[in-house]
Amino acid sequence: MTIARLKNLTASLTTAGLDAVVLNPGPTLTYLTGLHFHLMERPVVLFVTADQAPLLVLPELELPKVEMFPYKVQAIPYGELPSEWDDAFRKAAQVLGLDGKLIGVEPRQLRLMEFNYIQTGAPKARYPDASETLAALRLKKDQEEIEAMRRAVKIAQDALEATLPQIKIGMTEREVSSELVVQLFKHDSDPELPFSPIVSSGPNSANPHASPSERKLQAGDLLVIDWGAGYNGYMSDLTRTFAVGDVDDECRKIHEITQEANAAGRAAGKPGVPCAAVDIAARDVIEKAGYGKHFTHRTGHGIGMEGHEEPYMRGDNMQLLEAGMAYTVEPGIYLTNRNGVRVEDDVVVTENGVDVLSDMPREIRVVG
Amino acid sequence: MTIARLKNLTASLTTAGLDAVVLNPGPTLTYLTGLHFHLMERPVVLFVTADQAPLLVLPELELPKVEMFPYKVQAIPYGELPSEWDDAFRKAAQVLGLDGKLIGVEPRQLRLMEFNYIQTGAPKARYPDASETLAALRLKKDQEEIEAMRRAVKIAQDALEATLPQIKIGMTEREVSSELVVQLFKHDSDPELPFSPIVSSGPNSANPHASPSERKLQAGDLLVIDWGAGYNGYMSDLTRTFAVGDVDDECRKIHEITQEANAAGRAAGKPGVPCAAVDIAARDVIEKAGYGKHFTHRTGHGIGMEGHEEPYMRGDNMQLLEAGMAYTVEPGIYLTNRNGVRVEDDVVVTENGVDVLSDMPREIRVVG
Repeated sequence: MTIARLKNLTASLTTAGLDAVVLNPGPTLTYLTGLHFHLMERPVVLFVTADQAPLLVLPELELPKVEMFPYKVQAIPYGELPSEWDDAFRKAAQVLGLDGKLIGVEPRQLRLMEFNYIQTGAPKARYPDASETLAALRLKKDQEEIEAMRRAVKIAQDALEATLPQIKIGMTEREVSSELVVQLFKHDSDPELPFSPIVSSGPNSANPHASPSERKLQAGDLLVIDWGAGYNGYMSDLTRTFAVGDVDDECRKIHEITQEANAAGRAAGKPGVPCAAVDIAARDVIEKAGYGKHFTHRTGHGIGMEGHEEPYMRGDNMQLLEAGMAYTVEPGIYLTNRNGVRVEDDVVVTENGVDVLSDMPREIRVVG
Repeated sequence: MTIARLKNLTASLTTAGLDAVVLNPGPTLTYLTGLHFHLMERPVVLFVTADQAPLLVLPELELPKVEMFPYKVQAIPYGELPSEWDDAFRKAAQVLGLDGKLIGVEPRQLRLMEFNYIQTGAPKARYPDASETLAALRLKKDQEEIEAMRRAVKIAQDALEATLPQIKIGMTEREVSSELVVQLFKHDSDPELPFSPIVSSGPNSANPHASPSERKLQAGDLLVIDWGAGYNGYMSDLTRTFAVGDVDDECRKIHEITQEANAAGRAAGKPGVPCAAVDIAARDVIEKAGYGKHFTHRTGHGIGMEGHEEPYMRGDNMQLLEAGMAYTVEPGIYLTNRNGVRVEDDVVVTENGVDVLSDMPREIRVVG
């Protein structure tokens, strides 16, 4: 599996005109090796070239991982003294003959720290952005990846269903979030969640990126819960909006519109259609209902080993959907200082449409 | 609180000869603002200068956070189209007059992505490493920070005590780890753990950075559990080593030596002593017992808002300890392919020694 992935990458290097790419601990490194490395103060960098065995610079104490590699790698270990680390990177560039070459980087993942070490080893190299080449590898999910995502969705849904009966008026957002986190792990989520759950009530629900606060749930609140789980390194990301006791007509109305926009966004995806079409389909519903300026973000983002990854469901993104691409559909309406709604599902593009991984009821449900 | 921290930083800028520093989402940004931002594909950067209000470049949908700032900031929000983001950074540099100036960076935290945007705004600026200036701010913990760390230690200890009775021969490392994670959240850990627990048994325990595997616990194994919790953004990081049923004399011997090394390392810390002294004190015990080459890593690392931060307990680190510094003491002995032991505690330097935050028994205990 990872051998095939490595071959895909080395083939892409040639196509992209790159001599090498460098990867630090993160999803792409895990995708290519099946292994997890810590992102910490000790640099770990995998150099992949088109024609030589991959080379790994790493701390000595991580050496046991080299034996777990699914293919042959050259290892350049370094000791605990940072003063020796430059040398390890010089040696790496020398062994691979990289100075003066084109070395692709992943700017969203690579830190200046690793980049500085790599540059010390190959000061005359150029470092183009290889994000697209690397993202393309992970863009279309295979069956095993889709099953892991389906499981991550199921864990998330089961955890929230187990949490809902415990939600009462007077609980704080933070208490709801804590219980949901316990339930996520009881239902076997990976130790690393894609993100900390958003639990936002009343006026807080109008802030799409709110952190759970000490605010207590009150009758009449809308309650937005945006949460996800991890399974085997793959993520889910869902949102449902609830009514705390009785809510007013405006709340019910904006929920209904958002739910309709979510359905339109889900229905719009199929191979050959641009990502923009998904955004436009969802946005049209909200605009026609007169709430266009209250839908302040894109309709969705890709999802897989990262909570946010390519492709992005934005009105300007003409990238065409292909079978195997996975993304969220998450329109929302935010009435500042009053109320907010979001309804979010995860889908995977199939041969003729999308497979919706999440099936939790989308209707507004009453809690508390 | 955060106002005083900001003042400390602006004063340090002048001392360090810097015109500004740039911060992306991470511990230093949270330390200075009390707020959490997402590290994602949309760049968020705080510019701090010595003489102007801090300036924040951020996505429009994060704007509600600006009102939560504890002091005045200038905000430059950008929309969902990445093609407009360069402009936001150009405007930021222009407003602050930063081009051609000295702008400090934090290479361990700043990604190439944010750095590229910042450089686009200020192409003629120079970008020295400001890690030391920034780390110095967080180096000495105040009483509130120490109490948060004490609580993070207590959560971790209580969670492991609740897990131990459930550990049985035949369970996999991964099952032990899952149960421990559930217990961490039941005991109210923050949703973000400092790291996923290491649960390594038998030969796996000889790999200091092992990931929990499907290996089943067997009588005669040593079982290393290295775990931590978060509380209010502050971390704990502990290790205890257990005997699964009866273990042989060598296991008991290396445990005893390691426990003694841990005690020596804890005893060595006090104001005015170099970090190296802590490393040497612990290492001496292991070397004198003839296992020196099997203690393959430094004795400890600083801890606070990050699981690993300054100061580092390394034999070459002549940085002097000061009251308020917090770090781990974690000597280990690793007999490759056989057995490993590590005993780790968290301490804070006091006026005349250290306060050991962790008090869970260090003796080898039998489980299973």
